Amino acid sequence: MAEQAKIQSTKVTIIRNDAFVQTADNLKPTLFNNAITPTQLINVQSDSTAMHNWRTVHEADIAALDNRAFGKGESVIIDFGDHQVGYVSFDIKPVGSPPDAPLKLKLTFGEMPVEMAEPFSSYNGWISSSWLQEETLIVDVLPRHVELPRRYSFRYLKIEVIDTSPKYRVSFLNMTCNTVTSADIDNAIQLNHSDPLLQEIDRVSIKTLADCMQDVFEDGPKRDRRLWLGDLRLQALANYPTFQSNDLVKRCLYLFASVPDERGAIAANLFIEPHLIADDTYLFDYSLFFTVTLYDYYLATHDEATLKELWPTAMRQVELALERLDHRGIVKDEDTWWSFIDWHEQLNKQAPSQAVLIYTLRRAIHLSKAVGCKQSVDFEQRLIDIEKATVECLWDADQGFFVSGDQRQVSWATQIWMALAEVLPEDNNKALMLRLLSVKPEVGPTTPYMYHHLVEALLVVGCRDEAIEHLKTYWGGMLSDGADTFWELYDPQNKDFSPYGSHLINSYCHAWSCTPTYLIRHYDL
Amino acid sequence: MAEQAKIQSTKVTIIRNDAFVQTADNLKPTLFNNAITPTQLINVQSDSTAMHNWRTVHEADIAALDNRAFGKGESVIIDFGDHQVGYVSFDIKPVGSPPDAPLKLKLTFGEMPVEMAEPFSSYNGWISSSWLQEETLIVDVLPRHVELPRRYSFRYLKIEVIDTSPKYRVSFLNMTCNTVTSADIDNAIQLNHSDPLLQEIDRVSIKTLADCMQDVFEDGPKRDRRLWLGDLRLQALANYPTFQSNDLVKRCLYLFASVPDERGAIAANLFIEPHLIADDTYLFDYSLFFTVTLYDYYLATHDEATLKELWPTAMRQVELALERLDHRGIVKDEDTWWSFIDWHEQLNKQAPSQAVLIYTLRRAIHLSKAVGCKQSVDFEQRLIDIEKATVECLWDADQGFFVSGDQRQVSWATQIWMALAEVLPEDNNKALMLRLLSVKPEVGPTTPYMYHHLVEALLVVGCRDEAIEHLKTYWGGMLSDGADTFWELYDPQNKDFSPYGSHLINSYCHAWSCTPTYLIRHYDL
Repeated sequence: MAEQAKIQSTKVTIIRNDAFVQTADNLKPTLFNNAITPTQLINVQSDSTAMHNWRTVHEADIAALDNRAFGKGESVIIDFGDHQVGYVSFDIKPVGSPPDAPLKLKLTFGEMPVEMAEPFSSYNGWISSSWLQEETLIVDVLPRHVELPRRYSFRYLKIEVIDTSPKYRVSFLNMTCNTVTSADIDNAIQLNHSDPLLQEIDRVSIKTLADCMQDVFEDGPKRDRRLWLGDLRLQALANYPTFQSNDLVKRCLYLFASVPDERGAIAANLFIEPHLIADDTYLFDYSLFFTVTLYDYYLATHDEATLKELWPTAMRQVELALERLDHRGIVKDEDTWWSFIDWHEQLNKQAPSQAVLIYTLRRAIHLSKAVGCKQSVDFEQRLIDIEKATVECLWDADQGFFVSGDQRQVSWATQIWMALAEVLPEDNNKALMLRLLSVKPEVGPTTPYMYHHLVEALLVVGCRDEAIEHLKTYWGGMLSDGADTFWELYDPQNKDFSPYGSHLINSYCHAWSCTPTYLIRHYDL
Repeated sequence: MAEQAKIQSTKVTIIRNDAFVQTADNLKPTLFNNAITPTQLINVQSDSTAMHNWRTVHEADIAALDNRAFGKGESVIIDFGDHQVGYVSFDIKPVGSPPDAPLKLKLTFGEMPVEMAEPFSSYNGWISSSWLQEETLIVDVLPRHVELPRRYSFRYLKIEVIDTSPKYRVSFLNMTCNTVTSADIDNAIQLNHSDPLLQEIDRVSIKTLADCMQDVFEDGPKRDRRLWLGDLRLQALANYPTFQSNDLVKRCLYLFASVPDERGAIAANLFIEPHLIADDTYLFDYSLFFTVTLYDYYLATHDEATLKELWPTAMRQVELALERLDHRGIVKDEDTWWSFIDWHEQLNKQAPSQAVLIYTLRRAIHLSKAVGCKQSVDFEQRLIDIEKATVECLWDADQGFFVSGDQRQVSWATQIWMALAEVLPEDNNKALMLRLLSVKPEVGPTTPYMYHHLVEALLVVGCRDEAIEHLKTYWGGMLSDGADTFWELYDPQNKDFSPYGSHLINSYCHAWSCTPTYLIRHYDL
């Protein structure tokens, strides 16, 4: 996920667990490198039928680049053929008289054609423009071998010659991207699906996951390049049946457990560089996902030592969430309270958060028993009470939907999470999801993150055909719209949607969109 | 000097002398470093009485910088107290929440207040905007120690925070410029002049020279950072009575002599990095100044070995210049012909170039005799013939001036160089200079380079008072207008003058302006 924390900043004291930090450090992965060379030179053209109204057109074979020389005001767009995450290097050769003035270049990296077409100076969104991937390079001495020190997430590179001098031009040679990932791509478990669309969706899911697997599971290699709990949970699920980098999941769990606040709460995300820092953003649902992620990890690995060591942290997240319940047993809904659920300004977070708590509590009870913790008895009783309260207070029998907040909002997110939490009996749960698809309440899902939960909820209640249809339509839609990796945001009804005020700043390779491989393989679709 | 070569580009074959290259390499100087910290924070204010209409005002003591934190859109101007040439480093510390987006900074270096006040984006001159000293820096991880890899020539540094994120601001600490020069400043020969203005002009001359003394004698550390023969000649003259870095002069002479073309001609300037390259610009006067610079070097050092080794190169420049004479013995004036003389679009170069040849021939005869070369006899006869032809063809007895070109132009440059060349008898030569000061022909001097020759010509003909007056008025004028080092261009009548189309691109520490220390000391002013 991303910059939820626009205004949230919590003052807390971090209680550092150095032993956990050490365990996490010992699990630091080796990065795999691959030298990628570009495939063609392209242009971008306006096309009202294309995503963001821009499509790429072939301009020349890549071999043509060596023989071109660029002067002031000239530019070229280089296509690396697929989404890449890595470090770019190239050589600059002067052509003409000896260079009698520095060379000034502007480099623009883009995951999507729109980033090549629309100037970054037009960006006016509310999160930092510094995420837009560009560099201004002034070179005093030519020829020059350039190794850009920053890591980029891109398919396209535009080079603009801002200035040379009237006496020389420049050529660009040996253009290379040295990619980095901690995913062992060559040894990933293969899928051979009879449905070519599901096979392709699976392939792009794995590519998306791999490009987000670095030193930790990052949310997006373009933005925010950070370890978020909500993304980690889904990446871990996609990882188990593919790369099986289970130690990377373990590392991330230990990192989160290393820096709780004084109450034991786990932060929504961590900074890894220059050293481990818990962000001052805390989210109700994300903290609980620590427990859920540990549950999923334990199911995948049966790693009892890790479970035992991290169980107190996992239990604590549930305890803290339970403290937010009012006298009825319902999560208090206040202005000072933060839960993510989905990027939707109108979405009330109370009922879906209640459902996330129930969902987590169920798994906490399982873990509690696995470690032989007495807490399981109390948790089981609380679960009964809370489920009862949920139906009493949040179920609207007339509408046949759960409602959220003072305004009794009926949202997709609430029904989806209640279905995942299995609050209603099995038949009623299925009826709830079918009713949701039929009635289509106005406050709908906006992100692949929520679409994942929609598809999984359909699978949980037994609506397999509807699940496959939604998966194909949504992720297949991204493919039709030109995705090389799955995107942070995709609203088929509003393809320019960005919660940040500009599609230029959206991430087009984003962890929470990589789950189809999990859904296809885990549910044998 | 600078970008004379706007359109000149000569196709030649370079005959490399590896032994000379080795000699030059062995003379590579050690650079002296000095860590300079800034002195204050300033602002720039519009002021119609100030140079370029901008003056600096004190904003805060430098100590205040540590305690300031800058957010998006904020900026600060840091004053390093004097002109500096070197490498800048500083630390960036985040303030507030952990930085959740990269930091984007724009750094602007300026020798003059105008560079802090007027945006470089407004530059529309004809030489490359890449000379404007700026950097855009995007920093992914904070805190960060920044060591900028490029060398800057500046007094002021403006830092603009283009973007951070709403959650953090940044402070700048440990701001340092590690200066570089090959001048041994601590052991420079001191002057104690009774006239405080001449004393101050001498001090700033030496500072200017030191800032241009790097691996070679550069013309300007801001622009072009290159070894030009016209500048070298004057720097060498300023060096002998001050730093006495005579080996650096020797190194530069060997560098020029290393890469003649197939006819033996010496290029107007050299590129030193990435390896020695002769620029494809050849100037009639600059090639001859190789001979003159060797003459001055021999006079200062009595280094006979160097004279002997470089004499053939020096002699060849004179021979090539003599080949340009027409049947009368006058330098041919054509469109394809290049001589620098001064930055003045209307200036005809024929007569001043004729004078430079006579000036050089006189010195070549001296050197020829010193090495026992038989060529001296021929050169002596040629000098007699050429002086005779010069008076016959270029002297206008009615006007009492030498004329140049088809249009018989009367310029300051022509009279000054004819005076320096001592073409007329002593009394007539003095009368010529006094007439020049009185009549003031329209085509006047525009650069400190030509003002140097004006003052020296006055001294040569015995007009000592007038020389001192011009020296004080011109270089003292620069001091009054705020010079920390002497400028590439200064026209008291038109202070915005730039031959490049913008005062932003002018160099404000320029080798050819450092000569007052030579004039004051050599002529005991």
